[in-house]
Amino acid sequence: MTQGSWIGVDVGGTKLLAVRLGADGGVDATATAAMPGRQAAPSDLEDAIVEVASQVRGADPVAGLGVAAAGLVDAAGERFLFGAHLPWRDEPVRARLAERTGWSVALDNDANCAGRAESARGAARGARSALMVTLGTGIGGAVILDGHVMRGAHGLAGEFGHQQVVPDGLPCECGLRGCWEQYCSGRALERVIRVALGRHLDGPEVTRLARAGDEVARQAFASIGTWLGVGVAGLVSAFDPEIVVVGGGVGSVGDLLFAPARAALAESLQGTDYRPVPPLVPAELGPEAGAIGAALLVRDETVRGR
Amino acid sequence: MTQGSWIGVDVGGTKLLAVRLGADGGVDATATAAMPGRQAAPSDLEDAIVEVASQVRGADPVAGLGVAAAGLVDAAGERFLFGAHLPWRDEPVRARLAERTGWSVALDNDANCAGRAESARGAARGARSALMVTLGTGIGGAVILDGHVMRGAHGLAGEFGHQQVVPDGLPCECGLRGCWEQYCSGRALERVIRVALGRHLDGPEVTRLARAGDEVARQAFASIGTWLGVGVAGLVSAFDPEIVVVGGGVGSVGDLLFAPARAALAESLQGTDYRPVPPLVPAELGPEAGAIGAALLVRDETVRGR
Repeated sequence: MTQGSWIGVDVGGTKLLAVRLGADGGVDATATAAMPGRQAAPSDLEDAIVEVASQVRGADPVAGLGVAAAGLVDAAGERFLFGAHLPWRDEPVRARLAERTGWSVALDNDANCAGRAESARGAARGARSALMVTLGTGIGGAVILDGHVMRGAHGLAGEFGHQQVVPDGLPCECGLRGCWEQYCSGRALERVIRVALGRHLDGPEVTRLARAGDEVARQAFASIGTWLGVGVAGLVSAFDPEIVVVGGGVGSVGDLLFAPARAALAESLQGTDYRPVPPLVPAELGPEAGAIGAALLVRDETVRGR
Repeated sequence: MTQGSWIGVDVGGTKLLAVRLGADGGVDATATAAMPGRQAAPSDLEDAIVEVASQVRGADPVAGLGVAAAGLVDAAGERFLFGAHLPWRDEPVRARLAERTGWSVALDNDANCAGRAESARGAARGARSALMVTLGTGIGGAVILDGHVMRGAHGLAGEFGHQQVVPDGLPCECGLRGCWEQYCSGRALERVIRVALGRHLDGPEVTRLARAGDEVARQAFASIGTWLGVGVAGLVSAFDPEIVVVGGGVGSVGDLLFAPARAALAESLQGTDYRPVPPLVPAELGPEAGAIGAALLVRDETVRGR
């Protein structure tokens, strides 16, 4: 077993979050940092990652650094291809960070890292097959098979958000129409509220209203939740997982989302006379899931070999 | 290597098709038989399988019998759970056939067997990951990862036909509405023609008309093909396969189907600036794919161990 500590950094749209795993696998230290501004160079983001990682390193030497990044990572885990909120465009991030730190470095998409963490020690532990759906501003996802995150032929497996669910439906930022994330995401929640109330409320405000019993806010969650169940039913037909885990900010609101989602899943899944409806459950590791998964990734790759 | 010959039997809605694999892996013999009638007992179908298998056995002893069945098979490959056109309801088919023949027996869903065959020696050979979509009366499918057919937690992976593609859409035989196979299948083709012409034509008749240049028939295939591309785009987002293979009767009509399907796939897939559109290709093994795959399955399970 390689000696030293394993660090994971989640590079999101607005901030960096670092964790250090302890010997027992728990989180021993965390740190956050602001993302470099919109005009940042690719190297500025690398600086910021090394800086926030240094804040969580303990007395032991660093054995490895895992990076979970909001965007597309190639199948080899070498290059960050594209992310709307990051300054990297087809950058060899893994090699760059390994060169400047001397540490083992691993790189993957943030939803894949969250799925890895939930599979190893969160809501999907013990399941050989699982789907992870992360509901934030949009939809991310991960596919776990035989306990491993399945990355796909080009590193893009689990990109569930842009499946068409409504023909000629709402226009999506991606250029298509009717994408699932237009009906089931934080952005969709805000749109439903804007249409109903004629003003903008952010996700936490809608959640507060709904918990206080506001009917419009509850209906907005019911709409998002129903679309969650319908979309998950399609994924369950295709993958037949043991369990489906929902994470991300919108995924953390509890029964407001899960009650309508579970009802829609059971109603939208074919053949429930002869098949079980898989459990649809909230993620357990919260906002640290991506960083924890990144640390587990570099540990697994370093110890078991890439 | 186990000595003897490997036999596969495809149990479809209307007939049984048996093949014997030669030493080189090619098909050395084939036979067909009618399905027992609707009032048949479960054992009548077992009789018919053994009978049609016996028709293709050669001079060598039989090493194993694989059965590809139109319906749901459990994850262990032991029980046939449900199929609309078969007399089996939760029957331990594998053990029954092994007991009465003394051969090694393996059992799987027909689309999974077709996917196995196309992966081993058909249109997806050499690909580590592939999706198989079988377009017949309805839609079946298979998921190939690392060269293996992925069966899912309950043996039901690859059931693509009942994903909702139109909210509150056409009613489906399964009890749901808006299922993909209501828009993209042999039955969908007949419905489009019935609506356009006011009379019933079967698939081969529509194909003949379309090839002769009939505009209504061509438009009917364009509709089915467009829905094929849209649905495949969603599956590609989720699985990120190297290649997508389309088989089944409707899948064998060529460019009438594939030209609109490829256009719709390219238009419906998110992020084609940074990802390739996977090839969407016809199956190569024709109607024997299921039986060939069943023979390969029992060979693989017997030689490598279940």
